[in-house]
Amino acid sequence: MRRRDPARPDDGQGEADSLGVGGPRSEGTRRTILHAARDIFATRGYEQTTIRAVAARAGIDASMVMRYFGSKAGLFTAAATMSVEPPDLRSVPADRRGEAFVRHFVSRWEDNLSGDSTVILMRTAVADPAVTAKMQATFNKLILGPVASLGLDDAASRASLIATQLLGLALCRYVVRLEPLASLPLDEIVFPVARTVQQYLAEALADG
Amino acid sequence: MRRRDPARPDDGQGEADSLGVGGPRSEGTRRTILHAARDIFATRGYEQTTIRAVAARAGIDASMVMRYFGSKAGLFTAAATMSVEPPDLRSVPADRRGEAFVRHFVSRWEDNLSGDSTVILMRTAVADPAVTAKMQATFNKLILGPVASLGLDDAASRASLIATQLLGLALCRYVVRLEPLASLPLDEIVFPVARTVQQYLAEALADG
Repeated sequence: MRRRDPARPDDGQGEADSLGVGGPRSEGTRRTILHAARDIFATRGYEQTTIRAVAARAGIDASMVMRYFGSKAGLFTAAATMSVEPPDLRSVPADRRGEAFVRHFVSRWEDNLSGDSTVILMRTAVADPAVTAKMQATFNKLILGPVASLGLDDAASRASLIATQLLGLALCRYVVRLEPLASLPLDEIVFPVARTVQQYLAEALADG
Repeated sequence: MRRRDPARPDDGQGEADSLGVGGPRSEGTRRTILHAARDIFATRGYEQTTIRAVAARAGIDASMVMRYFGSKAGLFTAAATMSVEPPDLRSVPADRRGEAFVRHFVSRWEDNLSGDSTVILMRTAVADPAVTAKMQATFNKLILGPVASLGLDDAASRASLIATQLLGLALCRYVVRLEPLASLPLDEIVFPVARTVQQYLAEALADG
């Protein structure tokens, strides 16, 4: 589940950012900026973070940050979704998709690097209404997209229910670090949560 | 599920607060302070909220706030858990406990008044590591307590899984207001989520 495709940039922004105007770009500079941004968003929150502070942390000029990411909002979205791609559910047998969905995200959250990105996104999205629209875009890409690709009835409702379970898991285990959840072996969490997600994908959503 | 017991104060603090030292207290003053605190915590967050600001909003002296709640932490806990008592699962048939659990909280979250308290607690707990310990205490009281009262094996793991589902629902529907979840009729959410909570209460947590 930790497969990485070296042909794709790891922030989910795609080609639009690697072309664009304003001169040549390097993947190394891009990563340096994103790591600096992630640290500063995580400690200061969205409102208190400035392009200038990120540039200073990265050791480059603020105009370079703007050239790579266009705006604070663009920088935030890239930093918060680093390394996270939607799961490919169509390649998984129908009765294993719940588990595939859960393992796809959990394997990234357990990895400190992108786990930090999840923490950033949740802290800022929850604390700051201005970031809510970015949470919606992330849901659309990472959860609704894969569910809709299966051609199910009620895809949006099913994706919404899956979001409640997966974001609740991220919130409790990685952000709030509620005990005993934060200390449970991962497999003890994956089995029951995968069963839930499988039902949200495949079972009737109403009684009778 | 909206039953209120008029013999109990609505903030879950119990008698310890209505007795205590420092002179007589009134339930009206207490409520006025809690409403002011809720508004200010919700807009400024935990760190930026001061006892002085809450007192000013409530139109009383800061020493009165201290007399009623002892500290900013005590005030926060009371404001964030206003109107929320744990569900009494033992009085519910075993196969309806998942639904009872979900309806108990959702009926309060749908009510604007205590819904606001949920939003406060989640915004501040997620944004501010200092508040995490209060989230743990709230989990222990509202989720672990009722599950443990049933004498089940693995009560702490079961309660943890229930927390991921219920807090994820609160996060997505009431805090982030993810669509289409925030606009779905409540019954379309309660049925599938209640089935999940019922499984976390009653079904095996591991394969085989």
